[in-house]
Amino acid sequence: MRVLVPFDAAEPKTRLAEALDPDERATLAHRLLGDVLGTVSDAGHEPVVLATAAVDVDAPVRTDERPLTPAVDDALADAPLPAGVVMADLGLATPGSVERLVGTAGDVAIAPGRGGGTNALVVRDPAFHVDFHGASVRDHRRIAAEAGLTVETVDSYRLGTDVDERADLAELALHGEGAAADWVRERFAVAAEDGRVTVARR
Amino acid sequence: MRVLVPFDAAEPKTRLAEALDPDERATLAHRLLGDVLGTVSDAGHEPVVLATAAVDVDAPVRTDERPLTPAVDDALADAPLPAGVVMADLGLATPGSVERLVGTAGDVAIAPGRGGGTNALVVRDPAFHVDFHGASVRDHRRIAAEAGLTVETVDSYRLGTDVDERADLAELALHGEGAAADWVRERFAVAAEDGRVTVARR
Repeated sequence: MRVLVPFDAAEPKTRLAEALDPDERATLAHRLLGDVLGTVSDAGHEPVVLATAAVDVDAPVRTDERPLTPAVDDALADAPLPAGVVMADLGLATPGSVERLVGTAGDVAIAPGRGGGTNALVVRDPAFHVDFHGASVRDHRRIAAEAGLTVETVDSYRLGTDVDERADLAELALHGEGAAADWVRERFAVAAEDGRVTVARR
Repeated sequence: MRVLVPFDAAEPKTRLAEALDPDERATLAHRLLGDVLGTVSDAGHEPVVLATAAVDVDAPVRTDERPLTPAVDDALADAPLPAGVVMADLGLATPGSVERLVGTAGDVAIAPGRGGGTNALVVRDPAFHVDFHGASVRDHRRIAAEAGLTVETVDSYRLGTDVDERADLAELALHGEGAAADWVRERFAVAAEDGRVTVARR
């Protein structure tokens, strides 16, 4: 299955600015992307990077400068269905979790992300379209329902965790198995604080 | 399988103080507890509430005023193994996710919680003991390794989401299927803000 991996090549991971400098953010974003591409390949699928600008990776790249929603919709329209979408910052994703996503039934299969997001999708019907603005998991359910399509959800902590802010670095350090997690563990220690954990520079 | 459901009967859900008044916090905590007990029962297991004080629920209650770690350790020592531990605030838990936990192999099966926590456990070997302080998922892996025990992880967004703070009310509203989620949806609307969602009073 073709799996689109959207990637913001311009200024990735701005919400990590309080934890990482711009070079570090770019490095982490590229490591996360590489991990996700490897994970999708290892699960037996064909990743295609959908990037806002050219990016040097070991996978085909489709560039589209537009916002995420129209870029993904057009790429899905050009893809044989079923097709997948897996965000480039799912640093906990494993081949097993991607296989669970692809093995989830429904005209649309969704992996919800923390905070109302949609972290990964499988689309099996061309009547579906995406909307990544706001609480996208709710919008995607609505869009599917309006088109008479079924939606199934994959219950995955790994696919539900995107790396957006400092606390997510702790998730990577505690649970990640890829190069991005190694990079974080080399630089940050996990520290407990008020019942939740965060990371501190080594 | 006996499944312990630890519950803080004294002052539950203090981290929700900025979103809910004390009566509301108590109401939500009891609804969450009731949902978890029903979910464990529906999955075919026998829930036992492990509470810091008497609590009126439709399940056996074991009271223990001590902190979570010694209370759970003693209750596990009195339970036939395998035995489970499922936190009382897992408002997204479903019978299916509990079945996946119980069906996960290992001398210890762990459902990690957001922020380094351990939201649910199955213990199959008496050499294991718990430690819920700090980044407990890491401590539980270490304790098991030191005792020569295997640990397996269940990859579940539903079990990984405990209801602790305002953002978690949005998780309940978006994904919950129980009485606690209904209660939240009656009072709060999900609102998008800076790319993540939160809740606002209706």
